[in-house]
Amino acid sequence: MLDVKLFQMETFLSEPYEDTLAPQLKSAHERLQDGSGLGGDFTGWVHLPRDYDKAEFARIKAAAAKIQKNSQALVVIGIGGSYLGARGVIDCLCSPNYNLKKKSTPNVYFMGNGLSADAMQEVLDLLEGVDFSVNVISKSGTTTEPAVAFRFFRDALEKKYGKAGAKGRIYATTDKARGALKSLANEEGWESFVVPDGVGGRYSVLTAVGLLPIAVAGIGIEELMGGAAKMMKLCETASYENPAWTYAALRDALYQKGWSIEVLACYDPAFRFMLEWWKQLYGESEGKDGKGLFPASVEFTADLHSMGQYMQDGTRNIFETVVRLGASEHQLYVPRDEDDGDGLNFLAGKPMDFIRDRAMEGTLLAHTEGGVPNLIVEAGGKDAKSLGQLIYFFEYACGLSGYLLEVNPFDQPGVEAYKKNMFALLGKPGYEDRKAELEAKLKK
Amino acid sequence: MLDVKLFQMETFLSEPYEDTLAPQLKSAHERLQDGSGLGGDFTGWVHLPRDYDKAEFARIKAAAAKIQKNSQALVVIGIGGSYLGARGVIDCLCSPNYNLKKKSTPNVYFMGNGLSADAMQEVLDLLEGVDFSVNVISKSGTTTEPAVAFRFFRDALEKKYGKAGAKGRIYATTDKARGALKSLANEEGWESFVVPDGVGGRYSVLTAVGLLPIAVAGIGIEELMGGAAKMMKLCETASYENPAWTYAALRDALYQKGWSIEVLACYDPAFRFMLEWWKQLYGESEGKDGKGLFPASVEFTADLHSMGQYMQDGTRNIFETVVRLGASEHQLYVPRDEDDGDGLNFLAGKPMDFIRDRAMEGTLLAHTEGGVPNLIVEAGGKDAKSLGQLIYFFEYACGLSGYLLEVNPFDQPGVEAYKKNMFALLGKPGYEDRKAELEAKLKK
Repeated sequence: MLDVKLFQMETFLSEPYEDTLAPQLKSAHERLQDGSGLGGDFTGWVHLPRDYDKAEFARIKAAAAKIQKNSQALVVIGIGGSYLGARGVIDCLCSPNYNLKKKSTPNVYFMGNGLSADAMQEVLDLLEGVDFSVNVISKSGTTTEPAVAFRFFRDALEKKYGKAGAKGRIYATTDKARGALKSLANEEGWESFVVPDGVGGRYSVLTAVGLLPIAVAGIGIEELMGGAAKMMKLCETASYENPAWTYAALRDALYQKGWSIEVLACYDPAFRFMLEWWKQLYGESEGKDGKGLFPASVEFTADLHSMGQYMQDGTRNIFETVVRLGASEHQLYVPRDEDDGDGLNFLAGKPMDFIRDRAMEGTLLAHTEGGVPNLIVEAGGKDAKSLGQLIYFFEYACGLSGYLLEVNPFDQPGVEAYKKNMFALLGKPGYEDRKAELEAKLKK
Repeated sequence: MLDVKLFQMETFLSEPYEDTLAPQLKSAHERLQDGSGLGGDFTGWVHLPRDYDKAEFARIKAAAAKIQKNSQALVVIGIGGSYLGARGVIDCLCSPNYNLKKKSTPNVYFMGNGLSADAMQEVLDLLEGVDFSVNVISKSGTTTEPAVAFRFFRDALEKKYGKAGAKGRIYATTDKARGALKSLANEEGWESFVVPDGVGGRYSVLTAVGLLPIAVAGIGIEELMGGAAKMMKLCETASYENPAWTYAALRDALYQKGWSIEVLACYDPAFRFMLEWWKQLYGESEGKDGKGLFPASVEFTADLHSMGQYMQDGTRNIFETVVRLGASEHQLYVPRDEDDGDGLNFLAGKPMDFIRDRAMEGTLLAHTEGGVPNLIVEAGGKDAKSLGQLIYFFEYACGLSGYLLEVNPFDQPGVEAYKKNMFALLGKPGYEDRKAELEAKLKK
């Protein structure tokens, strides 16, 4: 089962932070459990692994099976929380090279998460002569990036299959009743799935938002939900037996002592987009009111030869959280070389995992010695069940962390600022006054 | 031509930092130009775009042409500076989906940059039935990650082509005379290229280290070097007409005023690994002696829906450097939709680049308003020549920055710490005493 600890804790936290923080954690915990805290309307994810819509879950599996049958590619259109969770899980459990691998499931292209014409053209080209479907994910249907992308891919579908044919290949994940995308889906007769009201984007990977693409890639979504449910049970415990309490307490205690950057590390390159998912979860939940740990990420051992120098010897304001995934899926053994020109024969016959694990331990000791507190999250295995546990664990600890920090961990008011400016500069009707003002500022 | 500025400078830097820093910059500049500063033995990159080995350059092109002819894939084995530059350039100029695209040039797989058995197995599988070559890059030949990977891929080559056939498919980029890999290359008769003595890993992308893989991917390495040479000329100027002076001065002035994190941003997903290259360059050059800006990166607009909230409203210790790449290679225009269900018809017929550029401006205004200083680097275009300029610009500014900070920007002593521990824990001969000591610490 998932476990969290701070290595050589006494070096970094000599105070009895557990006792000090327990009352605040208890209060935060209760507010999460009953939805009575700041942003409490958005705690629908807390009991989701128990309360999720079973009928819809079955429809997701059926839709995934249909897409697997009639499509060689699925275009997933979404940004932020409608993008990072699914990509993180598919990269982690299938591979960052998922689209390149030989397999029986469709390719998955993540689009609408930016405004690059080159990236768009590339995927349009890759879809030439390929049967494909589209999953458009947006609570409102009017977020610029996915809405623009959807126009292109809907066009491409309708050109290829005609309006009637395209209809059966569009899946809308959106609000259950309102909004532009829901209206469109109703009018056009697209199958639709629900972004539940009480679940914000960055907490939505275990809803249809994440589950449909994940299922299309052939990952067992029952196992993923099962893992999350198991962790949900454990997180109901109002004590430090709850690993989310431990993680939230440790990072808060370190933050209060002046550590201002948290670097999430993993020793598997397949975890890169789970790191990105985590950065959104924590950065968007905590980074407000002039507060919050800065979330950064590294992929080891690659980045030991990049950010490693800084982590060992640079400004001493960082702590590190290492996610240990356990055994690799494949075991590979270092070949023997009779000449031993590289001097590596002392490793011949050893599994790669053995070397990786010693690198992990060696780094733990080195960074700790260098003054960087190291939190270790033992995540179990690289499988759907363990990843479901890890996802829920990070979500729950994030809710607790936000309340410890006395912010609303479920809003993101700052995201509107660039959007408003962008709309004005784009000439969106209703923003005329602001346009002139902003253009003047840009000229200065 | 490349240009750098701080938007609304008077808001963030009211002091005459230019005059204050000019004498230090002049001194740093002179030390870079004549190699008389700290780590001066490693300033071979400063005049590289002029002094590079023309005969070797021709051999690189010939080798690339040979690989393009006899291989459908090139496995590039290297870590840190022997990895990030080539990957950054290929991703940026060919696409992050380079291996997925239809093309006339070989796939390029970057290996030996970690210890994941799954990643290794995956590429071994992808090479089944594929003609391939290997470029192994290591100054010494004994760095664990690439050396382990090379054993696997050399084995695979020799099994497929026999020892004699494999010989013509292995390219070693290594020391010109010494080290395990050079000895092996001599004994086995592999074609070899040089990691010049005066060029550290993170400054080596414009040597054979980066150029061979880049050329294999079909990128014009003359144009890349030509751009770098042009920037080298400009960087010889000992004044703020030199854009590297401006960048180094601005980031130093901000650092001195308490901004401790620099976030490099780009609005093109193809730039992701150039961001990683930049993080190594700056993190490893500056992060020592308890000093240095923490280098982080974001990919916009995707990460406006992730790190955007933090950047707008979180802890106010970050500044942002935005690399503007100019026009996309492709122009795409937003399709009109008669029903306008998403309300986007005000953008119909507009190019994607137009929307992207307004997002860029809107974000600039929003983040500046939020208290985040924004440096803008106008990088010209998304082409080899502009990227060559940008690479040299960042390298030169990094050298200057290190000297302003009074560190040696060309060493990386901290990288050894984890390696020594790892060797001991792996049971490498000669490390026996340390092993027991470390294992005891791990048990505590």
